[in-house]
Amino acid sequence: MARWQPNASERLALAALDLFAERGYENTTVIDIAERAGLTKSTFFRHFQDKREVLFGGDTMAELLAQEIAAAPATAPPLEAVALALDAVGREAFTAARRALGARRRAVIAANPELREREALKGLRLTASMADALKRRGVPDVPSRVAAELGALTLRIAYERWSDAPDAEEFGDVARRALGEVRAASSTSLG
Amino acid sequence: MARWQPNASERLALAALDLFAERGYENTTVIDIAERAGLTKSTFFRHFQDKREVLFGGDTMAELLAQEIAAAPATAPPLEAVALALDAVGREAFTAARRALGARRRAVIAANPELREREALKGLRLTASMADALKRRGVPDVPSRVAAELGALTLRIAYERWSDAPDAEEFGDVARRALGEVRAASSTSLG
Repeated sequence: MARWQPNASERLALAALDLFAERGYENTTVIDIAERAGLTKSTFFRHFQDKREVLFGGDTMAELLAQEIAAAPATAPPLEAVALALDAVGREAFTAARRALGARRRAVIAANPELREREALKGLRLTASMADALKRRGVPDVPSRVAAELGALTLRIAYERWSDAPDAEEFGDVARRALGEVRAASSTSLG
Repeated sequence: MARWQPNASERLALAALDLFAERGYENTTVIDIAERAGLTKSTFFRHFQDKREVLFGGDTMAELLAQEIAAAPATAPPLEAVALALDAVGREAFTAARRALGARRRAVIAANPELREREALKGLRLTASMADALKRRGVPDVPSRVAAELGALTLRIAYERWSDAPDAEEFGDVARRALGEVRAASSTSLG
């Protein structure tokens, strides 16, 4: 165990990544993961609904994005509210400790159809969570959904760049730059 | 069997929808579906990789979108190439015969987590297929991905409206109007 002491859900995710690498995803059970993390099966199921979910952090990200969009200044237009939410992702979720796991996590997901399906569903949930939070701010349906899609795309582009990058640039900065590119592309060059 | 005679993959999809409604998704096997359609299990697997896939038409839609984007006039900007692809979806995939199945199909998917995951993954594949087709036209990475996301969002909005609508408006017209709204939202009102 590293000196950095993650909480139960991070410990479970780390244990799962280790076991998936050692034995393969199919040959690892929820009990194996809980034992490796020094926790019980019931603790596992308090955090995650099933084995797949351990790599996706439950609903934490969707809730964080919705909460930050709700907390944005009333005058912030939709994409600025999304930008503030991405800043919060950088502060609270995609920290330096998480970056070290990014490449392993992505490799496991890429190798398992079940995990790719779960990742796709999580992506839809993030997008829906952002769109709903924007609608609650009074943004109409289509602009809310467009801003949420552009926000989700920005999150994916920024995550790819950030988890691939050897340097120490923080997620929030990578995300702000990616959002600038997405915004420029959507407003001018698509025809 | 209705007078309208669909091809093997449509017959399998119709049989699957009937059986899922009668017995539930979990209690229906691939063999059941093939038998109901008057076909064999091996015919089923020539069309679909597994039971879930029967409601998603294999890769037909992703291939159609990519092919139409490739065939768009060289001068067409990215979203116009996407618009031409959506027109083709209306002509070749979302026909009047398909509309009659839309509500049942959506209800079955909504009720089954496995099917929702597959639908999410198919959505990602459609988006990736459009983005790749745009890149092959020389559109840079981020604008290709933005145009593909906006195209996929338009496809979802248009499909919801079209399959809910009691009137006879064609998919292509619904999609053109939805794309106009998506384009207006993305270019002006997001901040």
